[in-house]
Amino acid sequence: MSFKVLTSIKSVDNFLLEHRNNKKISLIHTMGNIHEGHIALIKRAIKETDIVIVSIFINIIQFDKTEDINNYPENLNKDKKILKELGVHALFAPKLDTIYPQNYSSYIIVDGLSDVLCGITKPLQCNGFTTLMCKLFNIVKPHYLYLGEKDYQQLIIIKKMIDDLEFNITVKSVQTVREKSGLALSTRNSFLSPREIIDANLLYKALKHAKDLFKKGEYSTNKLINAIENTLHEGVTLQVDYIAIVDSDTLNKLMTATKGSHIIIACYCGSTRLIDNISLKG
Amino acid sequence: MSFKVLTSIKSVDNFLLEHRNNKKISLIHTMGNIHEGHIALIKRAIKETDIVIVSIFINIIQFDKTEDINNYPENLNKDKKILKELGVHALFAPKLDTIYPQNYSSYIIVDGLSDVLCGITKPLQCNGFTTLMCKLFNIVKPHYLYLGEKDYQQLIIIKKMIDDLEFNITVKSVQTVREKSGLALSTRNSFLSPREIIDANLLYKALKHAKDLFKKGEYSTNKLINAIENTLHEGVTLQVDYIAIVDSDTLNKLMTATKGSHIIIACYCGSTRLIDNISLKG
Repeated sequence: MSFKVLTSIKSVDNFLLEHRNNKKISLIHTMGNIHEGHIALIKRAIKETDIVIVSIFINIIQFDKTEDINNYPENLNKDKKILKELGVHALFAPKLDTIYPQNYSSYIIVDGLSDVLCGITKPLQCNGFTTLMCKLFNIVKPHYLYLGEKDYQQLIIIKKMIDDLEFNITVKSVQTVREKSGLALSTRNSFLSPREIIDANLLYKALKHAKDLFKKGEYSTNKLINAIENTLHEGVTLQVDYIAIVDSDTLNKLMTATKGSHIIIACYCGSTRLIDNISLKG
Repeated sequence: MSFKVLTSIKSVDNFLLEHRNNKKISLIHTMGNIHEGHIALIKRAIKETDIVIVSIFINIIQFDKTEDINNYPENLNKDKKILKELGVHALFAPKLDTIYPQNYSSYIIVDGLSDVLCGITKPLQCNGFTTLMCKLFNIVKPHYLYLGEKDYQQLIIIKKMIDDLEFNITVKSVQTVREKSGLALSTRNSFLSPREIIDANLLYKALKHAKDLFKKGEYSTNKLINAIENTLHEGVTLQVDYIAIVDSDTLNKLMTATKGSHIIIACYCGSTRLIDNISLKG
């Protein structure tokens, strides 16, 4: 099957009609700038499913005003080349008004999950992401969604939405891909200065250190958070947005950490917002 | 094909797997108490599609506290008998926790349509209905949705949601079925006392009178609304919730009525809330 670039919803329908028969379809959504993090998702999807569809769409409604969406880099031609070489079957790269025509007005909210953590600082982000995913599910009709663990809150919200709204989709979460330094791969890393990169490396260092403390018997989330703050303070360009230790399923904040907890960090590094997380399991 | 009663989501999946092959599936959602209004929808669906699925579910999240949901009548056995005799292929009658398990938290909002008219008095009603319909769409996977025109706002909101979220479903709207007196059929009519029924008949009388005035050249929506109020004032048990003349597609309130307008009324008749509407077309 040759690599197809689809831009209209009708073209996705036709592609699916042609290829669907009992084949397992997987979706990987990206905002473009395909990097090793995306490639890890794509490779797993290619291994495990029959038809792999990648979407590239800069989801304008999940950005707030403090982010310069216009600076978000676009490299569609480079991305196409990478996807084709990887063996992706179709790229869905819709225009803005294909997804959000004038007078667009339907949104998905996930109560209690969208309004904590990143939802406080970036209220649009969570509802914007669920809304786009609902649309992509209805357009691409995938059986599997491959999603990285880097944005852990997003992963949990999408799982909850799929469950609540009865989408017949299995979520396959894939471990965060990291630089040798531990820094989680992200398109945003390209915004960082050399000094900021050094500081950004502290996020994962802080998470690992807290996990070590937990393994040694420190269960107080306040003390673990203090330890993380101390590590992050070493980074002069870092400003903490939040550090939270939450239940891995409900995202409820905890007083006492357990193996079922997750530590989630959001930090400004200069003007770039970075996120990372670690499970206390294992 | 024999009549099936399905209560679990899995049983709907199995039913569909067995019968789906290229067949046109239609959905008619009700809260039970099947009456001639529902029957008109069902008969059209049977005529026009291959598999007709009726859902019965009292959608608790679209009731507000002022309504006594416990008084909402249930006649499931009677309904089953009627549906079977009509030739309906399956009834989906889920339990409350099949649709809304504990910790349920995903909702669909339709901005600008859910927060006007009935959305002001009954804020839960509109979001509750879109959320249920989204779930039913994902469970039943219908090609066609048959919906009455009595709740005109609901009809417009569902059309907008289907369009915005890319559900591949065609809405077939069916004219409101009325008593000889003009009263729109509704389960709620059974709550009315003989005196209240006489007053309730004024709703359609007022709508028709306003339409007559419009045809004679009265385009001022203020004057048309005044005329409706005057008619409704004849009913001692009536209390107007709202009278609105709106664009038939956007539900925006208008100063000047046109053939593309709709008049929508919501009225308390004693303690029972009744709605009705009329198109100014034709």
